Amino acid sequence: MKVLVAIDSFKGSASSQEMNDYLSTGLRKNNKNIEIIQYPVADGGEGTLEALCSNKHCRVHKTLIPDIYGKKTYANYGVFSHDTVILEVAQSSGIHFVSSVEDPMTASSYGLGILIKYIVAEHPTIRKFVIGLGGSGINDAGIGMMKALGVSFMDQNNQEIPLGIEGINDICHINSTGLSEDVLDKEFILLSDVTNTLYGPEGATYTFGKQKGIKNIEEVDQAIQFYSLALKEKYKKDYSAVPGTGAAGGIGISFLYFLNASFVSGADYILDFIGIEEAIPQVDLIITGEGKIDNQTGYGKLPIVVAKRGKHFNKPVIAIAGDASNVGENVYNQGIDLVYSICKGPISLEESINNTKERTIQVGEDIFRMVTIFNKN
Amino acid sequence: MKVLVAIDSFKGSASSQEMNDYLSTGLRKNNKNIEIIQYPVADGGEGTLEALCSNKHCRVHKTLIPDIYGKKTYANYGVFSHDTVILEVAQSSGIHFVSSVEDPMTASSYGLGILIKYIVAEHPTIRKFVIGLGGSGINDAGIGMMKALGVSFMDQNNQEIPLGIEGINDICHINSTGLSEDVLDKEFILLSDVTNTLYGPEGATYTFGKQKGIKNIEEVDQAIQFYSLALKEKYKKDYSAVPGTGAAGGIGISFLYFLNASFVSGADYILDFIGIEEAIPQVDLIITGEGKIDNQTGYGKLPIVVAKRGKHFNKPVIAIAGDASNVGENVYNQGIDLVYSICKGPISLEESINNTKERTIQVGEDIFRMVTIFNKN
Repeated sequence: MKVLVAIDSFKGSASSQEMNDYLSTGLRKNNKNIEIIQYPVADGGEGTLEALCSNKHCRVHKTLIPDIYGKKTYANYGVFSHDTVILEVAQSSGIHFVSSVEDPMTASSYGLGILIKYIVAEHPTIRKFVIGLGGSGINDAGIGMMKALGVSFMDQNNQEIPLGIEGINDICHINSTGLSEDVLDKEFILLSDVTNTLYGPEGATYTFGKQKGIKNIEEVDQAIQFYSLALKEKYKKDYSAVPGTGAAGGIGISFLYFLNASFVSGADYILDFIGIEEAIPQVDLIITGEGKIDNQTGYGKLPIVVAKRGKHFNKPVIAIAGDASNVGENVYNQGIDLVYSICKGPISLEESINNTKERTIQVGEDIFRMVTIFNKN
Repeated sequence: MKVLVAIDSFKGSASSQEMNDYLSTGLRKNNKNIEIIQYPVADGGEGTLEALCSNKHCRVHKTLIPDIYGKKTYANYGVFSHDTVILEVAQSSGIHFVSSVEDPMTASSYGLGILIKYIVAEHPTIRKFVIGLGGSGINDAGIGMMKALGVSFMDQNNQEIPLGIEGINDICHINSTGLSEDVLDKEFILLSDVTNTLYGPEGATYTFGKQKGIKNIEEVDQAIQFYSLALKEKYKKDYSAVPGTGAAGGIGISFLYFLNASFVSGADYILDFIGIEEAIPQVDLIITGEGKIDNQTGYGKLPIVVAKRGKHFNKPVIAIAGDASNVGENVYNQGIDLVYSICKGPISLEESINNTKERTIQVGEDIFRMVTIFNKN
């Protein structure tokens, strides 16, 4: 028997690679001869770099850049075939930097701009940036990043607005002449796992602002809308309703206007990049998964994308999850045959996270048992 | 496809019949043509009467008797084929009567004796008592019951000791001449789901005393041992190590000495009685289960007994559980192919109990999905 294992990271608990390893350990426990093909996967969020750089032609580098409050931090990035660089917004501007002692209104994407600038200078053969948007801790619509890349955002007194969110409403003039040709001639591909638009009830701030510590949601949402209108005015185009502009604190809107970026589905891009399609026809069973599987999963999250590809070859697909309490028809209708939880009894979220390894191994054993029951009879 | 469903009650949550119904609803949801054979089952505890009286030749009666503190309560019993009566100790002396405002030292099995006496008088054709021992709230080793049936337990002043546990240590003389021939000529079969012996670390008091509100465990255990020695002295036989004498607060020890009772495995007896063996060869899958499945289950609990019978005909057996967090090899080695929990994510015990219906229906759907995945491929 041959099984393909491609489970997304369980956020705060285990990486994709770890989840694949745990499950495979369980599958093998009662059958040493089972053949397993593993792919670390991601959907543009946590683990994007790990998944894309599991390819042997990718090399990971590291450099010091400012985090969301300007403190120095190391950021990893991958270089693939000398012409493509792989970034995660979270490496420079991740939610793990959010701190209760700092003012969330000062959090900025400035570090990401510095990182891009550094890479452009350091790797002159690079032509393409592939950027995973998930897991960000900023909500400045990419203004900080653009400042680092040479764009000026000035108030009515021709003073530069400060980093963060506070000054957005004061923007009177935007001057992009400082943006260098070295940056402008690159291709920017944004990997997103959400389809939220820039502002409003489904926008960046209302959907993700709270988890980034923002209290005055309405006010910040209006500032983002104000910025978007300023860009629309300047470029005579409206990108605010592009799906994905609500990701990463609205950073995509700056990428779209200034850098001519394009959005793609993170899961699809990554699965193509790692070449999962080659393995699918050879296997008897596909196991995917994600920390939580619910109706949101149905909207193109990684397990659904894996399942659809599996179903194209008529393969059985099992998805595992930490929480599968609310799985509906839009999951089962899209190629997942069964959702199996790692929780097997009353348990707290914390305990479930702490026991992910043991429980995932058990699920591997269970899935092998399942296969055995029904193949025998 | 034909499925046999025989799930034990989920204590405090749903009866065996309800669990069977919920699961069957789920199984049928995506396949109206699935054929399901249901048996309500039990192992001598909660639901014994319901399981045995699911047989059409059984008629349920009801009478008023004293509960463990002497308050009037209704107890049900079943009469089968005019010669067999089916009782549950819990109906007269159940743990649901235990109250924090009453002294657990006064709780007595007296009501069960009254019930037996009443049945003997009311149904003269009865020859056999089948008694489910599970779910009791008493720990008086059956002294109260025997008092009701005419046995005297006297202290050194020839005074009757009081009901409950307090007076046991004062017993000097036991006089069973008041026990009527009408009771003595009956057969008593005790259905137990535990194999604990009468006293000591694995005995009635140490194992189950706390849940009955007993605080002075050591003292009560010694009183039970004292009673056992008195009986051994009187009858020149030692029954204290008979497996099952630790059930129902040690009531079995009185049944053995005074009424020549015999212990049987509750699960085995009930499965034989309801004739489950006839259905097994016809089905493609057996689904059983219990509120909690762990290593204890391996020691002859209902799901294991069902599984062993299923495996005799080489049938696949899935067990469902509220809590399956600690399932070990001694469950899988004895015929259960897979244990599936109704919990599918982090959840509290209370929430899990409150949602048993919805979650069991979902498990029914899941099991049907599982069958479909692997039968198709």
